[in-house]
Amino acid sequence: MIDVAILNVTGYAGAELARLLSHHPDVRIVAVTGRSAAGKRLGEVFPHLARLDLAIETETERGDLAFSALPHAAAAETLLPFVRRGVPVIDLSADFRLRDAAVYERWYRHAHVAPELLDRAVYGMPELHRDAIRTAGIIACPGCYPTAAILAVAPAVRAGLVNGDVIVDAKSGISGAGRGLGLTYHFAEANESVSAYALDGHRHLPEISQELAALREGVAPAVTFVPHLVPMTRGILATCYAPLADGLRGRDDAASVLRAAYERAYTAEPFTHLVETPPATKHTLGTNDCLVHVTVDPERRRMVAVAAVDNLVKGAAGQGVQCMNIRLGLPETRGLEAAALYP
Amino acid sequence: MIDVAILNVTGYAGAELARLLSHHPDVRIVAVTGRSAAGKRLGEVFPHLARLDLAIETETERGDLAFSALPHAAAAETLLPFVRRGVPVIDLSADFRLRDAAVYERWYRHAHVAPELLDRAVYGMPELHRDAIRTAGIIACPGCYPTAAILAVAPAVRAGLVNGDVIVDAKSGISGAGRGLGLTYHFAEANESVSAYALDGHRHLPEISQELAALREGVAPAVTFVPHLVPMTRGILATCYAPLADGLRGRDDAASVLRAAYERAYTAEPFTHLVETPPATKHTLGTNDCLVHVTVDPERRRMVAVAAVDNLVKGAAGQGVQCMNIRLGLPETRGLEAAALYP
Amino acid sequence: MIDVAILNVTGYAGAELARLLSHHPDVRIVAVTGRSAAGKRLGEVFPHLARLDLAIETETERGDLAFSALPHAAAAETLLPFVRRGVPVIDLSADFRLRDAAVYERWYRHAHVAPELLDRAVYGMPELHRDAIRTAGIIACPGCYPTAAILAVAPAVRAGLVNGDVIVDAKSGISGAGRGLGLTYHFAEANESVSAYALDGHRHLPEISQELAALREGVAPAVTFVPHLVPMTRGILATCYAPLADGLRGRDDAASVLRAAYERAYTAEPFTHLVETPPATKHTLGTNDCLVHVTVDPERRRMVAVAAVDNLVKGAAGQGVQCMNIRLGLPETRGLEAAALYP
Amino acid sequence: MIDVAILNVTGYAGAELARLLSHHPDVRIVAVTGRSAAGKRLGEVFPHLARLDLAIETETERGDLAFSALPHAAAAETLLPFVRRGVPVIDLSADFRLRDAAVYERWYRHAHVAPELLDRAVYGMPELHRDAIRTAGIIACPGCYPTAAILAVAPAVRAGLVNGDVIVDAKSGISGAGRGLGLTYHFAEANESVSAYALDGHRHLPEISQELAALREGVAPAVTFVPHLVPMTRGILATCYAPLADGLRGRDDAASVLRAAYERAYTAEPFTHLVETPPATKHTLGTNDCLVHVTVDPERRRMVAVAAVDNLVKGAAGQGVQCMNIRLGLPETRGLEAAALYP
Repeated sequence: MIDVAILNVTGYAGAELARLLSHHPDVRIVAVTGRSAAGKRLGEVFPHLARLDLAIETETERGDLAFSALPHAAAAETLLPFVRRGVPVIDLSADFRLRDAAVYERWYRHAHVAPELLDRAVYGMPELHRDAIRTAGIIACPGCYPTAAILAVAPAVRAGLVNGDVIVDAKSGISGAGRGLGLTYHFAEANESVSAYALDGHRHLPEISQELAALREGVAPAVTFVPHLVPMTRGILATCYAPLADGLRGRDDAASVLRAAYERAYTAEPFTHLVETPPATKHTLGTNDCLVHVTVDPERRRMVAVAAVDNLVKGAAGQGVQCMNIRLGLPETRGLEAAALYP
Repeated sequence: MIDVAILNVTGYAGAELARLLSHHPDVRIVAVTGRSAAGKRLGEVFPHLARLDLAIETETERGDLAFSALPHAAAAETLLPFVRRGVPVIDLSADFRLRDAAVYERWYRHAHVAPELLDRAVYGMPELHRDAIRTAGIIACPGCYPTAAILAVAPAVRAGLVNGDVIVDAKSGISGAGRGLGLTYHFAEANESVSAYALDGHRHLPEISQELAALREGVAPAVTFVPHLVPMTRGILATCYAPLADGLRGRDDAASVLRAAYERAYTAEPFTHLVETPPATKHTLGTNDCLVHVTVDPERRRMVAVAAVDNLVKGAAGQGVQCMNIRLGLPETRGLEAAALYP
Repeated sequence: MIDVAILNVTGYAGAELARLLSHHPDVRIVAVTGRSAAGKRLGEVFPHLARLDLAIETETERGDLAFSALPHAAAAETLLPFVRRGVPVIDLSADFRLRDAAVYERWYRHAHVAPELLDRAVYGMPELHRDAIRTAGIIACPGCYPTAAILAVAPAVRAGLVNGDVIVDAKSGISGAGRGLGLTYHFAEANESVSAYALDGHRHLPEISQELAALREGVAPAVTFVPHLVPMTRGILATCYAPLADGLRGRDDAASVLRAAYERAYTAEPFTHLVETPPATKHTLGTNDCLVHVTVDPERRRMVAVAAVDNLVKGAAGQGVQCMNIRLGLPETRGLEAAALYP
Repeated sequence: MIDVAILNVTGYAGAELARLLSHHPDVRIVAVTGRSAAGKRLGEVFPHLARLDLAIETETERGDLAFSALPHAAAAETLLPFVRRGVPVIDLSADFRLRDAAVYERWYRHAHVAPELLDRAVYGMPELHRDAIRTAGIIACPGCYPTAAILAVAPAVRAGLVNGDVIVDAKSGISGAGRGLGLTYHFAEANESVSAYALDGHRHLPEISQELAALREGVAPAVTFVPHLVPMTRGILATCYAPLADGLRGRDDAASVLRAAYERAYTAEPFTHLVETPPATKHTLGTNDCLVHVTVDPERRRMVAVAAVDNLVKGAAGQGVQCMNIRLGLPETRGLEAAALYP
């Protein structure tokens, strides 16, 4: 049994880590922290986690492995002692996702707390970085939007089947905005409404750009990313558009070529699957699955790729657990086998 | 008082026509038809319309003006006698939207019922065709998606500010699928889920292409259109992407140039408004408003334009009433003044 | 034209007053107040009200009639100067609903600001107090739950057809909780969940008891009232249970007797209607209607009465406008004619 | 490993059985049937179950134990061969729930297919019939509403703390209506609306009456049961009202006495829990838990008891799996350990 700590269990991502880890046969949650609720029992804050019978602490040093669901900046600061002691950490914040501290600083508007550690961090997307995750000291789990966006287009970019002019139009359930209150997330405001936001640039954009740029020599994708709020609790659907590469544009079988590349990319993946019809987010509810569909707009010679994930599972806590399994040498699906909750 | 008939009142668009016309001070509904419910009182099928105290008939020849909410093919066939008698008709189906009978046939998979009448039809979008609507014999109201998509990008296309490589990513509430049953629209299936559909081509695409192509000499926009279902009853949000035209690409004030063009286009419009922040569909609920926001992705030199409408009002029945007002020489907002239902 | 002021326009009830009054042909809104948003244009806070082109003020003395959507205590205090000047006021808070200052103090936990005015206040439910409303200086609009509950059972209580042992099980959309933030009303928490609350007593209970007790000499109904939150924006459904009175218990035609009493009570009412099947809240969306259905559980000899209202219209602002119409001698339905927004 | 069959996997209850059993370590699903989808792979109908890699058959005789999610009448008929072979069956329909074939016939309007088997059937509610379930040949799983209603009031009835005059006001998510299409369950109709139905008697009533009547000698509860549809996918909340028994009515500590009785009844239960605040259905999402809260309306001397369940788990498939565990001598929570999906 591995002893794990969850830092900041009181948000949705932290609670989801606790839910998933509570089912995990090889793991024991030894500590959970959360400033605002420190001193309470976990079950007082989250009735569905009452069985865990844990007290929420202000901070902890325990754990053979630590998950952080802290916000950026706080995450890096709080994880430093773990990293220094050689305890592997899995961070759900943005603090260790961007390779370049200057990019981080531009988007997050403060200096990075520990830029010297960026070299030791691995972007925690197993489909792209599985080998590096096995030995990483710091695993920086992707944001929810980047998970869907990157998995939707990576096989095409890597295989050079599209040019880099990518548009990501993403639709997210409201839990993606977290447990903090705000008029935008007030039920009567968010319900029965769809809207776009962050048109001047969302912080998840540099992650998407960074990861796509690393896929193929000489291609630097120019990504436009527009997130939307839709009135549901969980789920992200990323609809992605990119012009076919020159070689593919004239070919009648472009869609088949694309599908073959995706099939190759994902056939061995335990959670990311190519599907024959456009996926519904409902089919990922509560699971670590990412369902990807790819096709070609026949008249416009443009790839359209769609990915569906549960933003709190594959888009956050579940991907963290998947990374943990890889890091600890456990079967990758351990603790993540449950089928989606349907309907 | 003008006597109007509503053909096929029993779907959502027909019922919405009845709702709006029941408030209209210059109009009297003299007949409503609907095959499946013929013989019933309107209030039996739609309790909210009980005050209209009308019987649903199988068919009618009455009315100084006829609205049709019949499906395509049936619409043209049923409207023919009205047209021959010189009664102006406002058709919410696709039958008279496309100028070219061959395009119609390709998308709707049957020969057009009355191709000889296409020349007498006007595409019922006042923002583009107000003058022609004043005297039209047949007003072909746009589809719900085209309404949002065209209004989102038309000013930019007409002013030559973008090239024609347009992507329309549209999100629709479930009422857009109509009142007919289907597993996809079953509550437990549609709720808490988002999905894309019609990736191989949606019938609203040729309308969008036709109308955009007519805006500017020498520009033939190549539109990719992907519709999505989101779990809400009403509302469409169309998020549209197009590369800036060459002349604008390098300019720092591209967003201002775009906004000025939109301001010019819409400042005199009674229902279509340029707004400073991305609109939420909720702000159009129950109204004939179209709220448009336009900006530039600064790094990618791409226009992003967003339009929100109520799919059953500006996207269907309300635009029909607006066209009727224009056709009859009434004030354009007559009967459409109500503010949105918020929250 | 009557000049009206809306005190505290920035909550949902205040905004709904503005929406309804903006359509009212005999009224001009001359002032709107709201502390938190003072200085802003109304359209900045509520885009759907932008056409009103009003500035939100801190306070006002203007108006031939004043509506208050202030919270209790603040309402009485702010309305006092109007009352002293002889300006009729319509208060949506609880301050003037209860006849007995001691009952008020027990439930609202502070002394009444102006107990001497209670005698001049009329409970603003036209179905019960239309005549008194015509000349009232203070009209105290009922709470949303009491509106549904009282209209569901009043005809039976008044006619002595049930004994007073009434249970009100009410289900409300989340907008009933107002525009103030709270975890309970956070989208991800409220969505896809139903719960009961206030089992130890909700402040709307004494209103219900007071009004039912006044209906029939010698009957003092003992009401159990349990409110519930359901995941929708608007609407209240009150399902009410009461044993049949002794004389009716043994009669096979008890349901017909009840329906006849309700028919008599409501046949002349412009907004409250007896319906033949259990009503859905959707059929009242955006309207001032109250739909009531009454029947008998045949085996248990118990009346079951169900009422549906839009909590923000008949349950708040709409009923206020209805009272205003009565007070000003206008047709009672003026400005409230719109049909429900369906679907 | 036990081989189990699922008859009629294609509805929501059947699919939920497959979801739960697919996680169960001691069970192997060897056959699934479903007339309309016979010949398809299970994953074609239910993408979330694709991993099961099963073909849907028209019928089956396989299995050491059979679950039926067939509708009533079809269930009894299809299960007969299993019963005759001595294979234990767990039936989710109503066919074996009612002890009295005449009551069945009155409510289901056809003669019972196998009245001679009723004596061998046990009502599959472990909280009431655990011992009998251990050896039962036929386990008749309760309906979703009865599960919540009975668990809400049984401890009070059994302990004689209330008289039998019980009102059950139940609120159900739309999945309770099944996967069959109907206008009432069409998204645009069901969404944003609450309504009561079956006021003239719902088929789940006789189950509730039967089980409550069996709890205490000499008490024959007279139950009024009114179900409601609320716009969410899963969950039932049953709010139940009953007058305190004479002995308790005058006691100040009535609520404590009630809570003690519930604590005794449920303290050893693995899934049914007494909770200190009114439960939200969200806290049961996807789980076999039943959360019960009990209190007293202090002024009216009436018990108010609330129970929350997931209608497809504890209200159907999960309770079936719990019964299977008991019947097979497995730990009762096996395969049902997952925490609720929150938020």
